[in-house]
Amino acid sequence: MDKMLSVWKTAPKEGLELKDTAIPKIKDDEVLVKVKATSICGTDIHIYKWDEWAQNRIGKNIPYIFGHEVAGEVVEAGKNVRGVHVGDHVSAETHISCGYCYQCKTGNEHICQNVKILGVDTQGTFAEYLALPYRNAWVNDKKIPHWVATAQEPLGNAVHTVFDGEIVGKTVTIFGMGPIGVCAAGLCKIAGAAKIIAIDPVPSRLKFAKEFGADVLIDNSTDSNVQKQIMDATDGLGADVFLEFAGSPAAMKHGLGTLKAGGRASILGIFPKPFEVDVTNDIVFRGIHIGGINGRKMFDTWYKAKALLPKIGLERIVTHRFKLSEIEKGFDVLKRREGMKVVLEP
Amino acid sequence: MDKMLSVWKTAPKEGLELKDTAIPKIKDDEVLVKVKATSICGTDIHIYKWDEWAQNRIGKNIPYIFGHEVAGEVVEAGKNVRGVHVGDHVSAETHISCGYCYQCKTGNEHICQNVKILGVDTQGTFAEYLALPYRNAWVNDKKIPHWVATAQEPLGNAVHTVFDGEIVGKTVTIFGMGPIGVCAAGLCKIAGAAKIIAIDPVPSRLKFAKEFGADVLIDNSTDSNVQKQIMDATDGLGADVFLEFAGSPAAMKHGLGTLKAGGRASILGIFPKPFEVDVTNDIVFRGIHIGGINGRKMFDTWYKAKALLPKIGLERIVTHRFKLSEIEKGFDVLKRREGMKVVLEP
Amino acid sequence: MDKMLSVWKTAPKEGLELKDTAIPKIKDDEVLVKVKATSICGTDIHIYKWDEWAQNRIGKNIPYIFGHEVAGEVVEAGKNVRGVHVGDHVSAETHISCGYCYQCKTGNEHICQNVKILGVDTQGTFAEYLALPYRNAWVNDKKIPHWVATAQEPLGNAVHTVFDGEIVGKTVTIFGMGPIGVCAAGLCKIAGAAKIIAIDPVPSRLKFAKEFGADVLIDNSTDSNVQKQIMDATDGLGADVFLEFAGSPAAMKHGLGTLKAGGRASILGIFPKPFEVDVTNDIVFRGIHIGGINGRKMFDTWYKAKALLPKIGLERIVTHRFKLSEIEKGFDVLKRREGMKVVLEP
Amino acid sequence: MDKMLSVWKTAPKEGLELKDTAIPKIKDDEVLVKVKATSICGTDIHIYKWDEWAQNRIGKNIPYIFGHEVAGEVVEAGKNVRGVHVGDHVSAETHISCGYCYQCKTGNEHICQNVKILGVDTQGTFAEYLALPYRNAWVNDKKIPHWVATAQEPLGNAVHTVFDGEIVGKTVTIFGMGPIGVCAAGLCKIAGAAKIIAIDPVPSRLKFAKEFGADVLIDNSTDSNVQKQIMDATDGLGADVFLEFAGSPAAMKHGLGTLKAGGRASILGIFPKPFEVDVTNDIVFRGIHIGGINGRKMFDTWYKAKALLPKIGLERIVTHRFKLSEIEKGFDVLKRREGMKVVLEP
Repeated sequence: MDKMLSVWKTAPKEGLELKDTAIPKIKDDEVLVKVKATSICGTDIHIYKWDEWAQNRIGKNIPYIFGHEVAGEVVEAGKNVRGVHVGDHVSAETHISCGYCYQCKTGNEHICQNVKILGVDTQGTFAEYLALPYRNAWVNDKKIPHWVATAQEPLGNAVHTVFDGEIVGKTVTIFGMGPIGVCAAGLCKIAGAAKIIAIDPVPSRLKFAKEFGADVLIDNSTDSNVQKQIMDATDGLGADVFLEFAGSPAAMKHGLGTLKAGGRASILGIFPKPFEVDVTNDIVFRGIHIGGINGRKMFDTWYKAKALLPKIGLERIVTHRFKLSEIEKGFDVLKRREGMKVVLEP
Repeated sequence: MDKMLSVWKTAPKEGLELKDTAIPKIKDDEVLVKVKATSICGTDIHIYKWDEWAQNRIGKNIPYIFGHEVAGEVVEAGKNVRGVHVGDHVSAETHISCGYCYQCKTGNEHICQNVKILGVDTQGTFAEYLALPYRNAWVNDKKIPHWVATAQEPLGNAVHTVFDGEIVGKTVTIFGMGPIGVCAAGLCKIAGAAKIIAIDPVPSRLKFAKEFGADVLIDNSTDSNVQKQIMDATDGLGADVFLEFAGSPAAMKHGLGTLKAGGRASILGIFPKPFEVDVTNDIVFRGIHIGGINGRKMFDTWYKAKALLPKIGLERIVTHRFKLSEIEKGFDVLKRREGMKVVLEP
Repeated sequence: MDKMLSVWKTAPKEGLELKDTAIPKIKDDEVLVKVKATSICGTDIHIYKWDEWAQNRIGKNIPYIFGHEVAGEVVEAGKNVRGVHVGDHVSAETHISCGYCYQCKTGNEHICQNVKILGVDTQGTFAEYLALPYRNAWVNDKKIPHWVATAQEPLGNAVHTVFDGEIVGKTVTIFGMGPIGVCAAGLCKIAGAAKIIAIDPVPSRLKFAKEFGADVLIDNSTDSNVQKQIMDATDGLGADVFLEFAGSPAAMKHGLGTLKAGGRASILGIFPKPFEVDVTNDIVFRGIHIGGINGRKMFDTWYKAKALLPKIGLERIVTHRFKLSEIEKGFDVLKRREGMKVVLEP
Repeated sequence: MDKMLSVWKTAPKEGLELKDTAIPKIKDDEVLVKVKATSICGTDIHIYKWDEWAQNRIGKNIPYIFGHEVAGEVVEAGKNVRGVHVGDHVSAETHISCGYCYQCKTGNEHICQNVKILGVDTQGTFAEYLALPYRNAWVNDKKIPHWVATAQEPLGNAVHTVFDGEIVGKTVTIFGMGPIGVCAAGLCKIAGAAKIIAIDPVPSRLKFAKEFGADVLIDNSTDSNVQKQIMDATDGLGADVFLEFAGSPAAMKHGLGTLKAGGRASILGIFPKPFEVDVTNDIVFRGIHIGGINGRKMFDTWYKAKALLPKIGLERIVTHRFKLSEIEKGFDVLKRREGMKVVLEP
């Protein structure tokens, strides 16, 4: 049990490397997690492809193990660990916060000034074992299979975004039907949204949205009439809530443009670069409130996700399961945009 | 008492026209106000100059009486009027709302779908008399001179913006030191802000800001180091709150760029056209919440303004008082950017 | 069409009187509603029985027509009416507010200082026609049968109470399974509550609660172990939210006593008289927040109710339908506590 | 430097004992604080007197060092300490939370399920040195004298209570003018309250309230007309906010009874036993919201207190300063109700 299989980013170019390396030693405030399932996030694809973002963000960290979505079992606990025990099933909150900055001390650890991201700034989860600060270990109900529990991390992003304001009885537009957007549709359904309008350019993704509860599907692969379709679907009134997961300036324009005066926009999408916004007409005159969303509230978001897991059918977004050693297959699937969530099991 | 002096926009070009016209007849739900003071707002300058905005917005309304900031005395009340009486001193809430749309029925009359703006869509206040829907008449304390009470309308804009979130103990940046920005500085002071940082390119306006309580003054007529100065003034942490009254893309950039992660931006400024925003870095990653602000909450804002009037020394922003017949002098002063608030007294 | 059947409280004693009386004349700001369905509320039972509350509250109003839950069609509209039209199907918001007091002007018309209650302070709905201020007329979707639409008034009470704070993902205790409590259970279900615990001493009412979505049923006809059962149902943690519709000091004790520290209590129940509360241990030390709930938010609550009507199956609480002329049968049913909601159709 | 002077509760009866004991050894996550000032709280008087509360709460802890309000300098730091350094001036947050329960993980550490109170459940501050978990050490600005900084703990209680809702522009009643109530008056003034009404039976305390900004003083040593005086002071409208620091059922009655419909009550006072509340009339019908307040938000409250310290003149509540060895003098003063805050300096 001294060596483990692990997936490294070693070279500044597309690709990854499988290696046998030492099982990590934990510190006093860490737990050792035997990884049972780990899944591939959009961030991992950037790292795999070694695009501009990855070069800037990760350049100085390689070589290192990447990956951050995970579920597993605690096999060892440091002496300062509290509230997590050997044998517990856990997932990882990926924001490792400092605990003492202004944000950490006022309920906003997810935007800590000194935050490190698991699998980005630290050794990650694409491995058989993971050393994890115990404050970042979230104890799962043992009834949830590990291959489902690993998808809680994107579910959490959706929970944070959807519930940044009121949903019950509201009409909601959701742009971007990747795993997070699809979870958002499911959450809106569970929480009593009046009407859920899902927008995406990929028909297979819209199908997922429908399965999770979207009432209206809009294919925006052609831009011609997205706003009109939304206005029609809302009796000409516009939506109460706009959720952005697409990272697209056009989505931003269409989403803000179809918000009811006084509406709420919650933005999790990452946009490649700055773009034009009609602040006067789309925000000021109509009294719109916009929230930027990052990560998950620690740990209010996790408690909500836990409470809603029995209702959402999260297993449905897991479209592929591979052995960890077959990780390249997983990236292939996602590069072809065929899958929703790909899970790897060591 | 059949005729009154009034100020008309009659022709589609710069200027105005003084006329003797009939005193308006009130409807059942209106009061007739004898105007004691009326003041010039930025909007009136647009109308006077007949710039692009005015042409588009007002073109089809001329000829009409303009002006919307007012204080006066009720001299007649329609039979359906409730809660306002002959003899009351009043100001006018300028948003004449329909009362039955979604926004009106859910506490957001200021962004009514069918709103009409006094003096823009209706006959205005640059006159000796005004017919005003009684629901838009705000009863003033008789201890407040009319020439001060007329400035409550911009004060209300400031109240709405400043108190769209928490202020006590917060560090605040305020961009744009016109009458609203200066009032905002005063309100922040009254409400216990920790530090008030006022930014404007005009030294005489910064002087006003200081008088109203700003702790730090930044001249942004040269752009070189606004953000650095703000960061220095906040011990490198950034501000908790950013208030935009300048309508300037640069202000937006500097204000968002110096907000603490998790901070609040409230935007009342009107920007001439769409502009680039770095949504990813300035809003999403740092968990910023932005609110577009329009008008005044009806009438929560007015109650707050009333409560704070005895504390703020509003009379200090009234730099010029003219007879209504001398209104051209008032516009001259403002075109030269010499005054803060110009009041006209019939 | 000059005369109509109507139900009067004429004498200061138990009972009612059926009379043929003149159809009311409407004022300029009223609509005439042809009543299609009207239902019996707990308040009406007090009036029928002429108990102490009724004597004190209504004594000086008799003789008058009582009843306040209603659905019907607008057959005439006064000249000042806006947003409601002849032919519209409507229900009545029963709080007739003044429109100009502090509460009315700050989004709290339901607790207006000068409020009049329909059918309590004014002529009511147990009649073939009703004169109603147009601001109190709520336009219904014509797809909703009148005999269902009349039950929106208690649904609205439930909406106001349930959504006075967050529900999604929360564990909720609900005391009192009359029509409002049962609706509250249904709303919690729709809005994604994690677990709904319904408490009532009448088994048939608990059955209703179950049908509307309650997960745990507790019969508190014997008091011995209510708190223990709640704690067991919440893994010893207590509930996040406590909703009181029973008007019972014991319910208050048990509900507060089983709230999680930091939890929320929303109280709509009317208690016959003051009673002992352990403020220190049940409120202060555990950081509990309690809200008193009255009526419905005007009209945020109605919009939410409208959005949720297609989901809740409101028709299920209507257990009895009689002709208006058979109103005594309705009171008989309710006095025997056999029905949930009794609807009368003229 | 091996021994230190310390104040012990050793016997189950009135009194205390001064002892020379070993300076505490710190753990890895603790700092050693050289106590420069420590002050006497109401809780300490209960412990000194050994009343019923003390017997029940502390009985099993004696012998131990009591006291919990403190300011001092860090002289040693355990190896896991972050964000606090040797040489820092610190005060202590007295709620030592577990860090892993539901409340701790959702921003409510102050009502942690496993909380220990400094100087109640652990060795306290009436000593020359204190071992303190580093997460409970709050770093003070070195410009604040220690004898003032020790009073931040009650200031924090006031901050938490006052800012549990909006204050700016509001009319506020404050019952109980001990150190916390007086701080609350000062905070309301700083934060722009419209009118501050202070109620207490002791004239010298009311004088303090006035100095801190109270606009209206009411002596409730005779109960006859407290409510009338409050209504008169609020033009018959009642107050917007009611703050309870007296722990008195009469205060509760008068405070709730004079709240405006829709108002807010925040209760920090500890009541000796349960008492009658008119929930129907004082809470439900008028739509009142009541919050139970405990401790300080960790650490939002501390940040607010820090920001407001330069404004409030906290030194004014320190009426007596003694050497730690003279602690009996301090209790004498307080037992005679002569002082506001008594500070002890080792």
